[in-house]
Order: sequence, then structure tokens, then C-alpha cells
Amino acid sequence: MRNVKVGIWGFGAMGSGMAKMLLKKKGIDIVGVCDMHPERVNKSMYEVLGCERGEKPEVIINSDANVVFTEECADVVLIATDSFTKGAFDKIKHVLERKINVISTAEEMAYPQAQEPELAKELDKIAKENGVSVLGTGINPGFVLDLLILALTGTCEEVDYIKAARVNDLSPFGTAVMVEQGVGVTKEVFEKGVEDGSIAGHVGFPESIRMITDGIGWNLEKIDQTREPIMSNVYRKSEYAEVQAGNVAGCRQCGYGYVDGQMKVEMEHPQQILPHLEGLSTGDYVSIKGTPNIDLQITPEIPGGIGTIAMCVNSIPHVINAIPGLKTMLDIPVPRAIMGDVRELVQLKENVEA
Amino acid sequence: MRNVKVGIWGFGAMGSGMAKMLLKKKGIDIVGVCDMHPERVNKSMYEVLGCERGEKPEVIINSDANVVFTEECADVVLIATDSFTKGAFDKIKHVLERKINVISTAEEMAYPQAQEPELAKELDKIAKENGVSVLGTGINPGFVLDLLILALTGTCEEVDYIKAARVNDLSPFGTAVMVEQGVGVTKEVFEKGVEDGSIAGHVGFPESIRMITDGIGWNLEKIDQTREPIMSNVYRKSEYAEVQAGNVAGCRQCGYGYVDGQMKVEMEHPQQILPHLEGLSTGDYVSIKGTPNIDLQITPEIPGGIGTIAMCVNSIPHVINAIPGLKTMLDIPVPRAIMGDVRELVQLKENVEA
Repeated sequence: MRNVKVGIWGFGAMGSGMAKMLLKKKGIDIVGVCDMHPERVNKSMYEVLGCERGEKPEVIINSDANVVFTEECADVVLIATDSFTKGAFDKIKHVLERKINVISTAEEMAYPQAQEPELAKELDKIAKENGVSVLGTGINPGFVLDLLILALTGTCEEVDYIKAARVNDLSPFGTAVMVEQGVGVTKEVFEKGVEDGSIAGHVGFPESIRMITDGIGWNLEKIDQTREPIMSNVYRKSEYAEVQAGNVAGCRQCGYGYVDGQMKVEMEHPQQILPHLEGLSTGDYVSIKGTPNIDLQITPEIPGGIGTIAMCVNSIPHVINAIPGLKTMLDIPVPRAIMGDVRELVQLKENVEA
Repeated sequence: MRNVKVGIWGFGAMGSGMAKMLLKKKGIDIVGVCDMHPERVNKSMYEVLGCERGEKPEVIINSDANVVFTEECADVVLIATDSFTKGAFDKIKHVLERKINVISTAEEMAYPQAQEPELAKELDKIAKENGVSVLGTGINPGFVLDLLILALTGTCEEVDYIKAARVNDLSPFGTAVMVEQGVGVTKEVFEKGVEDGSIAGHVGFPESIRMITDGIGWNLEKIDQTREPIMSNVYRKSEYAEVQAGNVAGCRQCGYGYVDGQMKVEMEHPQQILPHLEGLSTGDYVSIKGTPNIDLQITPEIPGGIGTIAMCVNSIPHVINAIPGLKTMLDIPVPRAIMGDVRELVQLKENVEA
């Protein structure tokens, strides 16, 4: 039985993190990496990762997707380049047309039906024409504020109202995230940034909310979102950011889903550095009002980086095994940790046909 | 588009509870009920439930399965009669052979591969021969101590150790459960009951533990279980039981799964009446040691009765849509609440073929 073959497109924190995780797993090889960054291109993947190659096949990072991703060169390609479906679309299409399954980290791809229904249909069509599948996932969207909630509703006779919050610490993230979330700026700069789109906050509420409402059969009429500055009362300093007392420590984003004229889904995601400096603890919280009521907490929160890496890698068998098309977390069996041989989990085409 | 047709076998607390839940859902009809209880047989299901029939089809409870479950009379039959695979086997076989999907509440059926691998193979074969599926589920096994844990591991790169507990209050349950759990007896009677099997405790640890280890790819070597009396320091009295101080308030059951010579899965399920009288609070708790660590709590616990009813009913679309065979929670998409029209969730055979 041959090893499962994986390609990676985008070798930043997520792509390289997935590579490191994959190298620890049995029955799976990385067969190609596409990345444009001048510090990484034309180098051995193992050198970039700072890992021993051992007996694994050599992988030289290449910036040309046409060279890296040829027809059926891999069973699945992990694409970790974009947050938005529009940005990821051409890359996903390229891979699907080479008859290779795709897992995307793009937040919007967790449920592209929410904001890009036309592109979602197009991806479904391309995937089916080529006999492969495409899935977007991650920790959030992809798990905490959607799949986990949906799983809890499975124990409910009726659901009346869903409230969930993810309270996390941004400190481990890099400069790009600090800028996107407005960490360290003044209130005025933050408000201007929200207006002109340079402070994007969290990408994923429309995807999570629509995945939930579609999943349980609520007719979603409208989604509202708000982004407000988390003003710091104290001085905060982390590796990648510094916040003066009176300035912005992060972005508190809220999402609201309306069903039958009523707000039925309420989500809160305050992201800041060092929340414990003001006595705040971090965690993931879900409260379902229904039959029965359910109150869940995970403290501290499931970490974002590792969680996204793991959700993508752990979805590999389910995406390979799926009936062709665009898949979401509503369609595939629940991804779980892979502690054994990946080959035992997948039905590869040549084995099924043989 | 016709309504989805459901049969129910066994009309005790679980079966009648599922009927009540189904009557509130859209696009689904109960078409037959089989039950032997002299107080229910030959009566209208609506009379037994104390519900208005409205425009729903009449259902007279019948004790003869051959009369109730004829070929393709339903899309799925919910069987709520047994705890053990052996006991449920002939009933499941009867229904599958009539080309009808089955959902079983039998705890062992949540993962019959654990203790009845031969019967599991046989059921898989019968289901495939008849083009239908069979699934066992419930709140536990079926969700709290297996599917929920598996879902959490999906966010992990590595899992080293799993510890979980379900601490619940038995007060709402009836006399049969009180006897099975040894509520109210002396320590000596409890110990004798465990020895002779009359105090069964919780059925499901081998199923939950093996579902987890198979699901993440750990090679399970051995399962140990212990059952010990929860001695009450205070007088406790509930609707169905009375416990003198110094006697048994319930059964504390533990399960241990060994992998590679080490204990890797630890489960605790103390079941008693009125734990709050001794300052104990109830809840579902999961702790995963790995990358990352995850600590989850649901307080109070998801209630057992409603939870089992909901998990079975909410699994209906996934069992109807599944590729034929024996299914477990590892195979189907995560069940979620059904708040819309059930017909929109299922691919019925005649529609697919048309």
C-alpha cells in the first residue's frame, strides 16, 4: 500500500505548521510545496522547517504552481494562502482541475455558500467534473463557533437561541495580525481602520452563522456584525505589540443572525493581547437555549494556530474519501486526531478500482 | 415530496419520547408502533401519548412485529427495546430484511465492534444485502464520552491521554434504573449485585473507549472496568428511591483503556440520586492531554433521557442517506437539531432513482 501524497500551497505559519505535523504522521508523504517567499523559494522544505529529512523524499520549494501541482501528483493539496474565497478561488481551481482534492484554510471557504454562493457553485461543479472534493476548515470558522455548536444541538429536541463566545489572547501571533486587529493604535485610528477595511477583525462570522442555521434548518434572514475597539486601561507589551494605557488592545467583534424576524444566533469574539492583565480569562463558551439548555466551556480556549493546522490535517482522510464536490463540516464525518497509519483511513482511487 | 416514514419498536420512556419529539417535526410521519406492554397494545399511539392526533395518520400500537413492519413500510425504524446487541439483534435483523433502515438505542449497538464483533459483521452484511443502514446511538454511549471527545481531538496534532467524566443525577429515572444502579441498598447487597450481574451499572464503556481508540488509530489492548458503591453520608429521598445515611446512593463506574501497555483512556461515571445533597455538582467533563491540552466542561450534564431521544431522532436523515451497512458515529456527518423540514434533509430512494 503506497503512502498518501500531500501537497502544500503557501508555506507561512499555517502551511509550514501543517508540514511539521505531517512529518510526524505515518503513511503520508509531502510531495510538493509551492511558495513565493524569497527566503523560502528553491530551498529544501526540510531546511526551511529546520527538520531532519531522514528517509523522506526531498522536496524543493517552488514558486510555480504549474511545476509543483501536475495532474494527480498528490491525493490532496492543503492551500494556506488566503482568507477570502475570491483570493483562493484560482488556486483551488488549478488543483481541482489536476484531479487532486483540496483543503483550504481560507476562513470564507469554511462555508463559501454564505458570502460567495456563485463561486461555491462553481467550485462544486469543477470538483465534480474532476472526481475530487474541496473542503474549507480551521479552528474558527470550522470548529469552535460552528461544528462544535452543531454537534451539541444534536442532543437537543428543540433549539431556541444560540450564544457563543471565543475569548482569546493574540500575543503569539505576528505583526500582520496585530495590524489587522488594530492592536496598539488609538481609538481614532481604529475607527478609521474599520471604516476603510484595513482593520478587518475576524473573518468567519457569516460563515459560522450560516453553517449553523443551514445545518439545523433555520431560515437565516440577515447577519449583522459590529467591530469595536477593546480599550486598554493598563500598559500591555507582548513580543509583537505594545499598547499604551488608553489605546486599543484589540478588536471585539460580534455577529448576530436573524431568523423569523428574531435574533437567534449571537457570537462574540474579542481578540486582544494579554487579556489577563485586566483580569480576563480566555476560553471558548457555548450556551444553547432549548430542550435541553446546554452550557459548555473550554478554558483556556483551543489555541488558534495549532487548532487550524490540526483541523486541516485531520480532515485529509475524510476529504479523500468524500463523494466528489464542494464539502463543508456539515457533510463529512467528524475529523479526529490521527495517531495511527493514515493509509488505513483512506480509500485511494487505485485501491477501490483494483 | 412525500413525508419521511418512521416506525418505532418499543414504546417505553425512550420510544414514546421519540414519538413526542417526532410529532413536533415537519415532513415526517410515524407509520407504525410495535410494543408488547398490555397497557399500550391495541391503543391509539396518540391516546397513549396524551397528544392530539390532529390531521396525522392514525397509529394503533400492535404487539406483532410481522404486522407492523412489512417490506419498505417505513424509511427507518427506531428500536428502543434493549441495552445489549444480542438482545436487539433479531429485531434489527427483522427490520433490515424488510429493506428499512434502523436506529437502535441499545448501548452496545453504539459500537458493536467492541463486544460483539461477529454480530456486528453479520448486521453489516444483512444491511448491505438489503440496501439499508443500521446505527446505534444515544447520549452515552453515542455522544458525551465518545463523539464529543473524538470531535475535540480533531483540533489536536497529538493526543497522549484522555480523561472524561459524566457526573449525573439519577433522580428522574424510574424504578428499573434504581434497581440496576443499586440505589438504596446496603453495601453488602450492592457488592453481591455487582457479582451476580443484577447491578449492571452503566452499559457502554467498552463501546465508548473502543470507538475513541479505533477513531484516532490507537491499538487498544485491554479494557478494565470497576463498579463501586457511592455510600451516602446523608438521607436522600427522590420520587423513585429512598436512601438511608450509610447506604448506597448509586454506582460509581470507571473504565480504563490500555494502549501500548499504558493506560491512555480513563472514564468515570458516578450515577446516583441527589448528589447535590452532599455538595456535588453534576456535569460532563473532558480533559485531553496532547498538543494542545483541552479542558471542557458542560454543567450541568446534558440530560440523559432527552439527549438519547434527540440523538436518535436527529440521526434519522444521516442514516437514511448513508451508504448501506453498519454505521457508527465515526461514519456519519455529525447529527444536529432538526428545526426545519425533514424532507429537505433526506435523499429518499425513489427520488434518487427518479
